[in-house]
Formats: sequence, C-alpha cells, structure tokens
Amino acid sequence: MEIRGNNITWHEGHVDRKLREKLLQQKGCTIWMTGLSASGKSTLAFTLEHALVQRNRLTYVLDGDNVRHGLNRNLGFSAQDREENIRRIGEVAKLFADAGLIVMTSFISPYRKDRDIARKIHVEAGLFFVEVFVHAPIEICEERDPKGLYKKARRGELRGFTGIDDPYEPPENPELLIRTGEMTPQQGAMKILGYLVEKGHLMLPNDR
Amino acid sequence: MEIRGNNITWHEGHVDRKLREKLLQQKGCTIWMTGLSASGKSTLAFTLEHALVQRNRLTYVLDGDNVRHGLNRNLGFSAQDREENIRRIGEVAKLFADAGLIVMTSFISPYRKDRDIARKIHVEAGLFFVEVFVHAPIEICEERDPKGLYKKARRGELRGFTGIDDPYEPPENPELLIRTGEMTPQQGAMKILGYLVEKGHLMLPNDR
Repeated sequence: MEIRGNNITWHEGHVDRKLREKLLQQKGCTIWMTGLSASGKSTLAFTLEHALVQRNRLTYVLDGDNVRHGLNRNLGFSAQDREENIRRIGEVAKLFADAGLIVMTSFISPYRKDRDIARKIHVEAGLFFVEVFVHAPIEICEERDPKGLYKKARRGELRGFTGIDDPYEPPENPELLIRTGEMTPQQGAMKILGYLVEKGHLMLPNDR
Repeated sequence: MEIRGNNITWHEGHVDRKLREKLLQQKGCTIWMTGLSASGKSTLAFTLEHALVQRNRLTYVLDGDNVRHGLNRNLGFSAQDREENIRRIGEVAKLFADAGLIVMTSFISPYRKDRDIARKIHVEAGLFFVEVFVHAPIEICEERDPKGLYKKARRGELRGFTGIDDPYEPPENPELLIRTGEMTPQQGAMKILGYLVEKGHLMLPNDR
C-alpha cells in the first residue's frame, strides 16, 4: 500500500532492505563466531569491527557483555537456558542483519543444533550467515585462561564447562576456520573481510 | 587497551558510540510508541521510518511482525509472558540504539511499569528514550478495528484484550502525545521528527 500525502511518500510496511543497503553501501549479514572459551572469538570480533568501522562500515558485536546482562539476564546455565540463550542471540542477530548491519556474535555456542537454527532463520529470511570456527587447541585455551575459568572448572567449581565436562561440537562445514594459535587477530580479521568482499557483501575501497 | 599491529589500530572492546554517531550523522535513540490496538502506532512508525530514510537516516521498526514471530515466539499472553515480551523488546531496542540506529517500537505496551523499565535501561546506558503516546479514543479504535480483534474481544473470543477486559495505563508524562484522530500520520511523523531535531538528535537538512 502506497499513499502520497503532502510531499512524503510512505508505505504501510517495513522499509525495503535494498534501500538500507544502498544507504549503507553494504549488505546486512551475521558473522557467527563459535569456539571454546579463550579461543579468541571476542578479540577477533572487535578487531574485525574496528577494521570495518575504519572503512566506514556499520557493525555491531553481540557478546556476553551486552547480552548476558541485558536481554538474557533471566537465563542461567541449564541445558534449556543455554539453548534459549543461543536462540535469542540468533533472533536478535537476524534483526540486526535485516536492519543492514554487519553483526558479529561472540559466544561459545557449543552445540551444532543451536547454531544450525540460527543459520536456518537467516537463510529463510534471505540473509547471509557466515559461521566462523575460531579454533585453538584446548591446551592453548587453557593456558590463556584470561578469566581463570578453566582453572575453576578443573577444580570443579564450575560445572558443565565447555571442553572440560561439557562437549564442544565443532562446525562440520563452517564458512571460515580461523586458527588463532597460528595467526594474529589482524590476520584473522583480514581473512573474514576478504571473504565478505569476495562474496559481494562489501564494496572496497572505502568510498561511499 | 590499544594495540597497533600492521596498519590496523584496534581496541579490545566495543567501538565507541561517538564513532558510530559520526559515521551515521545521528544519535541512536529509541522512540517507544504506546497506545491501544488500532490507535495508529504502526502506521505512525512506518510513516516516520520512511520520512527518516528519505533523509538518509538509519532506522528500524520493532513490531509484532518481526518480534512476535521470532525472538518472542516462545511467549504467550499470560501476565508473565506479556511482561517478558516488553522486557525483551526494551533490551533489543537498547542494543539497536547503542548501535546508532533510530529504533521505533510499536507495541501496545499497556503497563506503565514495563515501559518505565524500558526507559530506565536506556537512561542508565546514556541513551535517549522518547515515549510517544499514540492516542485515539477507544470508540475510534474499535470502529477502525482492522484485524477484527475488538469484535472478537467483545464476543469473548479473546480474553485479556487491552481496553476491553484488560487495562491500558496511559503514560503520565510522555515526551510526545499524538492524537491520531486529529492529525494525519504525516503530521504525526513530522511532530516526532521536529522533536528529534529540537533535541539535537538529528541534524537536518539532509547532507552527510
């Protein structure tokens, strides 16, 4: 339905995604980082975010800081709550991608089934979904252990910790594999950036 | 923490909100439309969205279409679920505003307490929150009744319908009151746009 009144053309419905893409000179998409605790997901996400912002791209990172203390503050760590945690993150990422942003999610998201649901809702909405397996051997993650979580898990003070007493199901077919023990965050970010350019989701160089 | 490697400067943390504001030439904020069913919230939101997009502004509308069938698909209409519905919408709106978007929410959101929580989390995060009371007398809303919901509620086929057998608590101090029976959607949208300009949240005319 289109109505013209005064000098404003308006539609009763959402602004077309293509209009946003034109405005932002990018296509909204979700870059889903998955990997063990301390594998380097957040460092990679923020490095990529800064690299994109330097190129005038609009991005947003969903991570524990802004999700666990807000939208998902009423979720704990039971199996059911973990599943709901990832489900909500997938839905919010989809809304951001629909709005035209390059959104990155930085959560362990250990279960294949949950990640596949996130992918499915994106694909069904015609949105690009990039699963990035942020990989480091658990020995390296445990050595890094910036928050002392592995130590706590080893001492039995944390139950159901991914990689210790709860499984991590590695992606079988991720769009990208980033081995953080073998490259810098900058190199990892450039690999993802290159992938977005290659797939036509980002036009470089940086002119709008 | 700031690290310089190769030719990328990166920070371990979220991109500063000011950087996004500069990129988008706008300040992220939430425009919270509240009012009875058929009071004209969505029409107003979409009219404003199109007016903003024409001015090269990045906006997004959260409404039943993209929230009830996605993020909040696991919520029903019990008192508890309604509260959780609005809580999640408030949290997601806050994330969008933090990302720099002018986000509009279009939900009845009948309870003052729930709207106040949404406002509180925005204010605490230093984000601008504009409560817009989209008002039409219930007789008018009931006459419009585009989805036949009032009729169903009158026949007792819908329980707990706002305005019929569930209360609507009007805002006591909304930033804006739009009487949709007395102005066109375009006039309403211009009133909100003018308010954003007046408060310094939007620079016009439309040059970036």
